[in-house]
Amino acid sequence: MKNIALVISYDGSSFAGFQKQPNQRTVQGVLEDALHRLLGDKPKVSGAGRTDAGVHAIGQVVNFFTEYDLPERAYLRGLNSLLPSDVKVRQMFVASDNFQARKSATAKEYHYWLRLAETPSPIGIKAWQIYQALDLEAMALALLNFRGEHDFSAFRSTGSSVQTTVRTIYSTSYSYIGKYMVFSFTANGFLYNMVRIIMGTLLDVGLKKLLPQDIPAIIACCNREKAGRTAPPEGLYLYRVFYGGLDDCCREKGNSTIAADLFNTDLDIKGYFT
Amino acid sequence: MKNIALVISYDGSSFAGFQKQPNQRTVQGVLEDALHRLLGDKPKVSGAGRTDAGVHAIGQVVNFFTEYDLPERAYLRGLNSLLPSDVKVRQMFVASDNFQARKSATAKEYHYWLRLAETPSPIGIKAWQIYQALDLEAMALALLNFRGEHDFSAFRSTGSSVQTTVRTIYSTSYSYIGKYMVFSFTANGFLYNMVRIIMGTLLDVGLKKLLPQDIPAIIACCNREKAGRTAPPEGLYLYRVFYGGLDDCCREKGNSTIAADLFNTDLDIKGYFT
Repeated sequence: MKNIALVISYDGSSFAGFQKQPNQRTVQGVLEDALHRLLGDKPKVSGAGRTDAGVHAIGQVVNFFTEYDLPERAYLRGLNSLLPSDVKVRQMFVASDNFQARKSATAKEYHYWLRLAETPSPIGIKAWQIYQALDLEAMALALLNFRGEHDFSAFRSTGSSVQTTVRTIYSTSYSYIGKYMVFSFTANGFLYNMVRIIMGTLLDVGLKKLLPQDIPAIIACCNREKAGRTAPPEGLYLYRVFYGGLDDCCREKGNSTIAADLFNTDLDIKGYFT
Repeated sequence: MKNIALVISYDGSSFAGFQKQPNQRTVQGVLEDALHRLLGDKPKVSGAGRTDAGVHAIGQVVNFFTEYDLPERAYLRGLNSLLPSDVKVRQMFVASDNFQARKSATAKEYHYWLRLAETPSPIGIKAWQIYQALDLEAMALALLNFRGEHDFSAFRSTGSSVQTTVRTIYSTSYSYIGKYMVFSFTANGFLYNMVRIIMGTLLDVGLKKLLPQDIPAIIACCNREKAGRTAPPEGLYLYRVFYGGLDDCCREKGNSTIAADLFNTDLDIKGYFT
């Protein structure tokens, strides 16, 4: 059996999330159907991140086992022609047997896009449309307080069971691109809705309902009710999954690189691949 | 009666074009329905450019007459909340009585996006996906040959009657943005499918089926069969409509400004507005 890893992108707008559910259009379901048509057998696809309904991915990673030894081209061309326009394969790797897209991941990077404008745009990247004026400098300052190892219970929706609510955010950054502001978060893991609740809280800072220096106490109290609302899914992108050492994900990123990355995503996924 | 002008953006993917047709989802139809719900009366909307099925707009301009004197906010917020997510109002102006979105236009600017990559992307701007390696320098050189006043009969699909097939392309430019190459064309008018046939011809230059210096003869022969294929609609954007003097549209644009513009579109439409 070959262990195949794919890097995939999708627009989450018309999906009920990544994970397969009965009578719902899911990324996993659509991908498994297309693989079934390509390969004949019925591989079960496992994803690095279980993105929610409406959440997008630039570099989601999945793996599955198949007895067939198809070349990269069969995935980049053949599988892509079988997939709908809102999910596409970006890269294909033959992985070692012990690789698991989810469990082998050492870190993940999420981006969250805000659109700061009087009117929404039907063109280009999807984002959370914000009509009010925001104190962007205060938001950038508040962002720094999320870095490091913390118990993120205050930034977690109920509905998933985890062994520990401690996570380490290795790096954060932000970038202005025209009318957009993009935030990035790289961590060893994320709790359920964690980025979206952080973004809802950052919005409160932008609206001056909170100060940047209020963040450490909100983290420390471990009380979901002290944090902001859960930001909507349409601004959230699973950007990259890391499988290498921490060097890969912990380097400080310049704020200008996010824009360049968006249009130029040859994602490196290192380690485990032969 | 008030003559209202709106700058609108739309993703053309799910529209059968701008112009109203029976039993088809069109931009004009969707806009008139939403205006009917907002205003009560049934204004007939007229657009500056009759974009085809699948063609997008960043800054299409429309106008209509209404007896109601609603503030800008009613259009930017109210009308937008009545419109579907693939068409939105960007700006609203009260125009003078003699303003007509189509006839008053002095020039239009179209952009055409190519995506040069091994795989398509479901995220971000829509573009014509090109898998083959292209000679981009030759395409940039060929582009210059389209500037100026020419009879563009060779770059026109049949199906529309016009008084003259002579048009003036005031300026062209191109820009690389990551894996994308964007071409811009500003002209006093465009024949049916003109930009798409120019793009199909530029692709032939990129594929070395034509040389940049072949373009003048193709223009001169006025024979549609000598030009390239009609490029697909998904890469084409009506970017801006000019109503001012030629100064506004004829200035040479730096190639880097297209990318900035995309994310930062406060479109100026001058003249005629009071």
